Amino acid sequence: MPGNAQIIDGFIQAWNNLDMEAIMDHFTEDAEYANVPMGPPNVGKAAIRAFIEGFLGTTTEIQFVVHHQVEGATGVVMNERTDKLVMDGRTVELPVMGVFEFRDGKICAWRDYFDMGGFA
Amino acid sequence: MPGNAQIIDGFIQAWNNLDMEAIMDHFTEDAEYANVPMGPPNVGKAAIRAFIEGFLGTTTEIQFVVHHQVEGATGVVMNERTDKLVMDGRTVELPVMGVFEFRDGKICAWRDYFDMGGFA
Repeated sequence: MPGNAQIIDGFIQAWNNLDMEAIMDHFTEDAEYANVPMGPPNVGKAAIRAFIEGFLGTTTEIQFVVHHQVEGATGVVMNERTDKLVMDGRTVELPVMGVFEFRDGKICAWRDYFDMGGFA
Repeated sequence: MPGNAQIIDGFIQAWNNLDMEAIMDHFTEDAEYANVPMGPPNVGKAAIRAFIEGFLGTTTEIQFVVHHQVEGATGVVMNERTDKLVMDGRTVELPVMGVFEFRDGKICAWRDYFDMGGFA
């Protein structure tokens, strides 16, 4: 069984491949996904799918570059990344930290922290 | 010798105590401290001290509440926090993630990620 950090390695790869089904396969049914500066989390797989479909509708290239990633004794994973995106033909490089919680080998909570001004 | 996560526990306590010297004692001479959305890091203890003195000049209460903290195999520590501050008499609650790198039991790099709009 892969450790949680390895699960996140696969999750990042799914994003970089723009692979919607592989991304969704990483979440529990009741998962909560928050872009913290954007407000309350998307709760449940249907809401998460709708949010990510919207995101991938405008994003044609993704490269999440992981600088550091750590897994704690409790299984929580955190990483520090630069999320390189091509959105509506515009290139964005967003400094991000994320935290991931797990249940039964799936992500049950994901929160990303970044500066909204980074999109401006 | 305390682990790096324990060193950060003490560092957080020093902030909550508004204890300038205890805060500074945690850094290497050549440390780099970045509030990522605010731009390039403060480099070296003198620059870090000047920045923190400015911050503590307007901040009369600090409570850094740590929700999750993990230490990786390489010794890097990351945490997810709510930084509760009273600045110029105004209460601010800022969602933050931070990453800490170490050399010889001192912090040589610290980067905090948050939304600048959280100060508004």
